[in-house]
Amino acid sequence: MKEKIRLGIVGYGNLGKGVELAISQNPDMELAAIFTRRSVDSIKSYGKGVKIVNIDEANNYVKDIDVMILCGGSSTDIPVQGPYFASMYNTVDAYDNHAKIPEYIKAMNNVSKEAGKVSAVCLGWDPGLFSLNRVLLDAMLPSGKTYTFWGPGVSQGHSDAIRRVEGVKNAIQYTVPIEEAVERVRNGENPELSVRAKHRRECYVVAEEYADKDEIVNAIKSMPDYFVDYDVNVTFITEEELAKNHSKLFHGGFVARSGRTGEDRTNNHIAEFSLKLDSNSEFTANVLVAYARAVYRLSSEGSKGVKTIFDIPLTYVSDKSIEDLCKSYL
Amino acid sequence: MKEKIRLGIVGYGNLGKGVELAISQNPDMELAAIFTRRSVDSIKSYGKGVKIVNIDEANNYVKDIDVMILCGGSSTDIPVQGPYFASMYNTVDAYDNHAKIPEYIKAMNNVSKEAGKVSAVCLGWDPGLFSLNRVLLDAMLPSGKTYTFWGPGVSQGHSDAIRRVEGVKNAIQYTVPIEEAVERVRNGENPELSVRAKHRRECYVVAEEYADKDEIVNAIKSMPDYFVDYDVNVTFITEEELAKNHSKLFHGGFVARSGRTGEDRTNNHIAEFSLKLDSNSEFTANVLVAYARAVYRLSSEGSKGVKTIFDIPLTYVSDKSIEDLCKSYL
Repeated sequence: MKEKIRLGIVGYGNLGKGVELAISQNPDMELAAIFTRRSVDSIKSYGKGVKIVNIDEANNYVKDIDVMILCGGSSTDIPVQGPYFASMYNTVDAYDNHAKIPEYIKAMNNVSKEAGKVSAVCLGWDPGLFSLNRVLLDAMLPSGKTYTFWGPGVSQGHSDAIRRVEGVKNAIQYTVPIEEAVERVRNGENPELSVRAKHRRECYVVAEEYADKDEIVNAIKSMPDYFVDYDVNVTFITEEELAKNHSKLFHGGFVARSGRTGEDRTNNHIAEFSLKLDSNSEFTANVLVAYARAVYRLSSEGSKGVKTIFDIPLTYVSDKSIEDLCKSYL
Repeated sequence: MKEKIRLGIVGYGNLGKGVELAISQNPDMELAAIFTRRSVDSIKSYGKGVKIVNIDEANNYVKDIDVMILCGGSSTDIPVQGPYFASMYNTVDAYDNHAKIPEYIKAMNNVSKEAGKVSAVCLGWDPGLFSLNRVLLDAMLPSGKTYTFWGPGVSQGHSDAIRRVEGVKNAIQYTVPIEEAVERVRNGENPELSVRAKHRRECYVVAEEYADKDEIVNAIKSMPDYFVDYDVNVTFITEEELAKNHSKLFHGGFVARSGRTGEDRTNNHIAEFSLKLDSNSEFTANVLVAYARAVYRLSSEGSKGVKTIFDIPLTYVSDKSIEDLCKSYL
C-alpha cells in the first residue's frame, strides 16, 4: 500500500475545519496534527483522536508532516506564519491580500528555497481558480477583455469592516453582481464597467440599543475602499433575525473573457468559469488540499521555492495517473 | 528584440486558416510557411507573401520552423501526419478521435522522444480546455459528478455523417443541450442523465430531387453512434435556405462539476466552465497557437516527448512574465 500524504493544519477556524473535512474526502491523505494558538483543550476537531498541538511546538514535527496547510488570516497571521513555517515545512496557503502578493511571494520564495522546501501560495478560488482562468483565457483570446464578478455571496472582509463601526453589534454583507452588467458581458458587448456598475452591497446590521442608526448608515456608506464606490443598502435587523436568516457563508462568482477573432475581428467568443458555493471556506479548503498533493509531489522530486497556481501542472494536482487522465478525461 | 517563434501550418482548411489568423494576434509569433497537399498555386492565404509549400517538401524546413501546427482531420490525416511530423519537428495538434487517443499518444511519444522533440496533442476545447476543467474540478470536488454538455452548435462530424446518406445533397446538424437537464445540473440535483436526456439533434437537409424523404429520415434516425440514441428532428430545406440561414459554424457548451462537502455532505458546490463560440475553428486555432508557445519553450528547455494539456503549466502558455502574472492576474 502506498504511504499517505501527511498533512498538518495551522489554525483551526472555518478554513482549518474545512481542511480537516477535505482531507477525509481524499483517500491518499491523512491528517497528522492540528496546530493552534488557542488552548489545546479548547479545540474540538471533527475526527476522533486527532493530535492537537500548540503552535509553539510546531518545530518538533518536521519528520511527521509532509505539507503544512496554513489556515490563518491574510491580514496579520499569514505574513508572519508563512515564512516561519516555510523555513521548516512544505506549505500551502490562501494568502489573498492583493496589494501585497508580490512582496509576500518574494519573502516565501527566499525562505523556502533556503530551506529546500516548496511553498504553494495564494490558493483558493480567488486568488486561485479564478486566477488560473484569467491567465488561461487571456492566452486563448489575446484580443479581448476579462471580467470578474463576485457573488451573490457573503464577503467576510466587508462584514468585518461593518462590525468595526461604532454602534454596530453584528453585521453581514452580501456582495451582489448587477444583473444588467452581467448580461452585457455575457452578450459579448465588451462593455467598460465602473466599480459601481458591476456590484452592489447589501448590509444587514444589528445595532446596539444606544446607537444612532443614521450615523451607522453614514459611516458604512462613506467607508473608503470598502463601500464608498458602491451603491449600498443598509437594513437593520435583530440579532435573532441575523442568526435565523443570515448564517450561511455561501459565495461564488465568475471570470469571463470575451474576445474576437477573424479577418475583420467579427467573430466573438465568450469563455466563462463560474462557481456557486454553499460554503466558501469548505470549497477553499478543498482547493488547498488538492494543491497540497501537488506540493508533496513537487518536493519529492526535488523542487524548491515558491509555486503559484500558474506554475503547477494538473498532473501534480490530480490523484489519477496520467494514463487514467488521458483515457477518461481527455 | 526577442526573436519570434516561427510556426508552420500543415493543412489549410478551416482550422489552418484559423491558425493563420490566430498567429497574427500574437506579437511573439510569426508564420513561417503553410504546407498543403493541394496545388501550391490554389492556396490563397490571408497574409501577403506567405510561403506555400507542398507537404512532400516539409523535410526541407527543419531549420526554419520551431513548431508545426497540424491542422488535418482526425480520422485519416493526423494518425499519419502526427508521427511523420513529430519525427522532425515540435508539433501541436487537435487530435480528437476519442477511442483512439491513448494509442495515438503512445505513438507520438515514441516518435517525438526518439527525435528529441516535443509534441503537444489533443488540444482545442474538447479535447482541450474542457479536459483541463474536468481534471481540475474533479480534484477540487472529489465527492461529486462531472457533466459535459455540447452546443447549441454545429457538429461537423454529424453534418458529414448526414451528407453521406443516399439522396442527401447537403446538410447541417445542430447539437442542442436539453434545457431541463441543464437546469437540473445547475440546481445541484446531481441527476443521472441518459444520452437522450442531455442532447437533441436538429438536422437541416437538402435532398436530391429524386430522393425519398422518408427513407432519408429513417436512415438518419437509425444511424448507430451518431443518431440512434437521440431525439432527432429532420427538416428539409432548399440549398438556398441552407446557404442563407445555416452558414455559421458556431459552437460551445460547458463542463460542470457538482460536488458536496461538510460533515454531513450537505453543502453543495457547482463549478462550471462554459464557451460560446461564434467560430469553432477560429477558437480552436487560438488554443493551438497558445500551446505552440508552450511547446517552443518546453523544447528550448530540453523537454522531449508527448505533452497533454494536463502536463503543461500556464506559465509556459502565457506570453506574460511570471512577475506580471502574479501582480496582475493572481
